[in-house]
Amino acid sequence: MQIVFEGDERSLFLCMNKKLLVVGTMAYDAIETPFHKVDRILGGAATYIAFATSKFSANCGLVSVIGDDFADADLAKLTKLGIDAAGVEKVAGGKTFFWRGRYHDDMNTRTTLDTQLNVLENFSPKVPDAFKDSQVVVIGNLHPAVQKMALEQLDSTERFVLLDSMNFWMEHFRAELDEVIAMVDLISINDEEARLLTGEYSLTKAAAKIHVMGPKYIIIKKGEHGAQLYGEGKVFIASAFPIDQVVDPTGAGDSFAGGLAGFLTQTATINFDSLKQALVVGSIFASFTVEAFGVEAIEKVQNTELEKRILNFRALTHFNWDDKTLNL
Amino acid sequence: MQIVFEGDERSLFLCMNKKLLVVGTMAYDAIETPFHKVDRILGGAATYIAFATSKFSANCGLVSVIGDDFADADLAKLTKLGIDAAGVEKVAGGKTFFWRGRYHDDMNTRTTLDTQLNVLENFSPKVPDAFKDSQVVVIGNLHPAVQKMALEQLDSTERFVLLDSMNFWMEHFRAELDEVIAMVDLISINDEEARLLTGEYSLTKAAAKIHVMGPKYIIIKKGEHGAQLYGEGKVFIASAFPIDQVVDPTGAGDSFAGGLAGFLTQTATINFDSLKQALVVGSIFASFTVEAFGVEAIEKVQNTELEKRILNFRALTHFNWDDKTLNL
Repeated sequence: MQIVFEGDERSLFLCMNKKLLVVGTMAYDAIETPFHKVDRILGGAATYIAFATSKFSANCGLVSVIGDDFADADLAKLTKLGIDAAGVEKVAGGKTFFWRGRYHDDMNTRTTLDTQLNVLENFSPKVPDAFKDSQVVVIGNLHPAVQKMALEQLDSTERFVLLDSMNFWMEHFRAELDEVIAMVDLISINDEEARLLTGEYSLTKAAAKIHVMGPKYIIIKKGEHGAQLYGEGKVFIASAFPIDQVVDPTGAGDSFAGGLAGFLTQTATINFDSLKQALVVGSIFASFTVEAFGVEAIEKVQNTELEKRILNFRALTHFNWDDKTLNL
Repeated sequence: MQIVFEGDERSLFLCMNKKLLVVGTMAYDAIETPFHKVDRILGGAATYIAFATSKFSANCGLVSVIGDDFADADLAKLTKLGIDAAGVEKVAGGKTFFWRGRYHDDMNTRTTLDTQLNVLENFSPKVPDAFKDSQVVVIGNLHPAVQKMALEQLDSTERFVLLDSMNFWMEHFRAELDEVIAMVDLISINDEEARLLTGEYSLTKAAAKIHVMGPKYIIIKKGEHGAQLYGEGKVFIASAFPIDQVVDPTGAGDSFAGGLAGFLTQTATINFDSLKQALVVGSIFASFTVEAFGVEAIEKVQNTELEKRILNFRALTHFNWDDKTLNL
């Protein structure tokens, strides 16, 4: 199938076009870095994920919750990219989830200054009928009980589920989280979270333990040091695409998941080899995201830029070697 | 030229066989890790470098200094690998350089508990005439004034010099170090040292500044996170080969330099592409070194294991991607 969108280049990629579902938060963020400060910009895991998936998927449904303070213009940014927002519940009289944080000098660690859950507190995700049979599903960082609620509504017999989570749920809702982890195909977490989840310092050992918990594939993100994929008894070690100037790291992990999942909607099969490519795609999306505040960069990224950066990444990381190299 | 060494496999690699000179310390080390403790084992930068180069080079000279407490058996470990030790000065009545250190729980940072310079204090390197025209030269971590003394004795018109250094010299002997840096082709330092040397946090910017100081090529080592090569306006980003269990990180950087330089003695030309391969070879040598205490692992490594690990590294880090991948 070849669908042509007027005015952009997405048609290039649309061939397989599996149905994709994104479940996660939509938010307003206030972000401080050592260099800049912004108040109340569009954010939330599902927002970043959806922006990234939309570069590949013409059949993407979004399940989230917002208050009636959520700007129509912000929702329109997603729908005009082809995202189906029927699953986004707008709570009358409610306020949208709000997060305020400050990044430290290393641009890597951050302090949360304010979290107002608002409508997220009673979020009960409702997957629209049209997306219950989605073949690729991304469950963004949320309370594991909420993640489970969403997963239990799916009726697709063949699906690939990617889960994100974070240290807070590992520390306080471990039993609930373990139940969700057992239900997914791929978990994407960072190195500290992998260590927290397993008690193993070695990432190889941590991945092996997580594999036993359920997921066939494990991605461990290492920020500026890249990411690793484990599965089918194999390992893939990717560096991070080098960025001259990180402006705002918010949403990097979500864009990573979104780019990865979006790419998978277009592959004939989902296996270790296509996941390697998907991981690279995800990394490149993350590299765009951190170059500007909020969704500014990922909203604008063109597929030609994406492909150029992927080929550049290959050139930066591949080396020539064959059986004859040492026998000079 | 094909030289066959009885009882090992080095003959496989010996074709170009450029002359190689190693200048650096020989030492006895006492090492504590969270798991083990050893007293007085063979160490020193030049020792590790020479063990690694010997896997490739049949024409390698060593310039160093030892006391008469240095065991003949330890020197024999090097000479029986074909290392020419005529440039190793034995100071009668002197004691060999001694270092005692403790690695912390992360196996990455360490505390020096004792440094006895001994014969190193008055070390005045003398390059044997037979090695003054060496085509590949490795100057290990030493006082920059001593490094300069060695470099000034060379009379080869075409040579490639690799320099190692460390934070101590950058902090206390900056002017002398700058003079040496201006004389070399490649400098190999870690990320913190690159930042210290340039005042730039970004490694790309740091490399650009070091390039202006003289070296055509810059390698920035990032420990477990790999290494980067800069030169000819290009960048190569390599991950580190994953190790199940780091036993002793001592000598990793020196084995890296030695493996890299040894490989270069066998390449027809030294340029960005062969340096990419050399960097990979160096990383793999470092990965062997840290799997055992002291020189134990690097002393024993066979070329078949080396090649196997390099091919494994390629499989771990390369991904398939071509112009058609996104147009699925």
